[in-house]
Amino acid sequence: MTSSLRIAYYDHFGDSAKMLLWKSRLTPYLGDFEMVSLLSDAAIEADIALVWSPPHGRLAELKALKLIVSLGQGVDHLMSDPTLRDDVPIVRLVDENMSHALSQWVILNLLDHLRDGPFYRQRREERQFVQKEQMDTTGLSVGVYGMGAIGLVIAQRLSAIGFDVHGWSRTARSYQQQITAYHGEEGFRAMIQKCRAHVCILPLTPQTTNLFNKDVFAAMPEGAYFINGGRGKQIVETDLLEAVQSGHLSGAALDVFAVEPLAPDHPFWEEDKITIWPHVAAQTNPHTAALQVSQAIEACLVGKEPAHQVNRERGY
Amino acid sequence: MTSSLRIAYYDHFGDSAKMLLWKSRLTPYLGDFEMVSLLSDAAIEADIALVWSPPHGRLAELKALKLIVSLGQGVDHLMSDPTLRDDVPIVRLVDENMSHALSQWVILNLLDHLRDGPFYRQRREERQFVQKEQMDTTGLSVGVYGMGAIGLVIAQRLSAIGFDVHGWSRTARSYQQQITAYHGEEGFRAMIQKCRAHVCILPLTPQTTNLFNKDVFAAMPEGAYFINGGRGKQIVETDLLEAVQSGHLSGAALDVFAVEPLAPDHPFWEEDKITIWPHVAAQTNPHTAALQVSQAIEACLVGKEPAHQVNRERGY
Repeated sequence: MTSSLRIAYYDHFGDSAKMLLWKSRLTPYLGDFEMVSLLSDAAIEADIALVWSPPHGRLAELKALKLIVSLGQGVDHLMSDPTLRDDVPIVRLVDENMSHALSQWVILNLLDHLRDGPFYRQRREERQFVQKEQMDTTGLSVGVYGMGAIGLVIAQRLSAIGFDVHGWSRTARSYQQQITAYHGEEGFRAMIQKCRAHVCILPLTPQTTNLFNKDVFAAMPEGAYFINGGRGKQIVETDLLEAVQSGHLSGAALDVFAVEPLAPDHPFWEEDKITIWPHVAAQTNPHTAALQVSQAIEACLVGKEPAHQVNRERGY
Repeated sequence: MTSSLRIAYYDHFGDSAKMLLWKSRLTPYLGDFEMVSLLSDAAIEADIALVWSPPHGRLAELKALKLIVSLGQGVDHLMSDPTLRDDVPIVRLVDENMSHALSQWVILNLLDHLRDGPFYRQRREERQFVQKEQMDTTGLSVGVYGMGAIGLVIAQRLSAIGFDVHGWSRTARSYQQQITAYHGEEGFRAMIQKCRAHVCILPLTPQTTNLFNKDVFAAMPEGAYFINGGRGKQIVETDLLEAVQSGHLSGAALDVFAVEPLAPDHPFWEEDKITIWPHVAAQTNPHTAALQVSQAIEACLVGKEPAHQVNRERGY
């Protein structure tokens, strides 16, 4: 047995090329270390787990484990494991590039809807040079649910490009820019009724599971648009589909689903007004995230508390 | 003959419903007035022309004409008329809502390209839940050509959503925000070489006609993206097509064309990497522009200089 650092790696794409990429990106920061698959025997002695959606029960078998690093900003893939040990700290990636990427994705979907992207692509297909009256979107109200590091960037950018932005968080917060703050259950209901577009960016917890259901969609203004960059299990999918098909909602853009990959026979595929993305709103990029991962590992090895450590009670 | 105000109206869509809409929007500001088609006999006595792309020669026949109001921010449709009298002031619409609309359009097209919109739409069509590696767009350099009222809003908003923005204008200017300023011929060449995305928003003048040609496209970095929200005649269309088809440019998004509507057999339709919009990036909206039009008319009637009057020498 060697005394050198050993990192156990897993992601649910089973792509070993990505493990090698992570190794090469971390080496400049960490020097010499071993990187092994979480499912290999060698993983049993690992000090660190660098993982996305590992099989439940496996992390509990790693007796020397000192730190779990989530390969994304969400940690619901770890918190849902009933065997998860509570004496091993968990760190989640909060990469500036991910806020940048996710905010771009939100803005792209919102503008594509407001500017009739689907209509004009259809006309282009038919070689028709046909104009449609432009929706006046100046000061359109947009609600952002989840005002953490990422949600705040999204809200600030939506405000900067001319939207009237409202932000909801679990507990009371205030913002420098022209963002109207809401919190708690009462604030949630108020924002749902107020906004013409809704952006969910919440972490998945017992409180946010099935949060967007039939009643919530019904309380949104007629013609509202829904964007989910949070987690699929936060919406009741059949309720969303019904709200779109009835015409009460004008459509939705979704990056996440209750079950991924989205099944080929899922009814969402049939509904043109639902834009489907394969969980790519903000991909973890080893090129930019390696510094943060290595800092978390180094902090842990010298007994310091790493940044972005998950609060078990809060659930993220 | 009556002494009341008479406005002659024309737009190249020949839509009389739009003329009635303008009349109803202007009435609250101007009170009682007559609105007639520019092509009618009654137009000969008109005081004001409210027009988009009128037939050459027609405005010269309106002997009592005191003011021409362009129904858009561009005035090339007027300046190209050799019979245009130089003793009648021309005003162009510079509506805040148009800056808003045009900046949205630019951001939408840029993000759709950078975030692989076409790839994911194709996968959605095929019901494939397939991920593609995300381009890192943090700090990507974007050049905005034409830093007037509209260009400045575009540049500020691109900067606010994380791009490294460069702005070119005819004469030297400086900006408060983090926008790098360029001007003149030397500045134009420098910005062309510097930026990975290029946004043209220039007015059409003899100097900007065919400005974006083979040499200019060749000087852009490999893989650059080109967006035209200015005028079609500012680009040599066959040169752009060649630059895209050779792979030197990664694509283009165009709202304007040398001849509109774009002919059904135009080669642009055949090239998937060219996004085509039917001149709708910023539609003049009578709902929001009526105030500005009425203010220009009122200023003219009391002998004051209206805002946004065209400088004939400069050409816009």
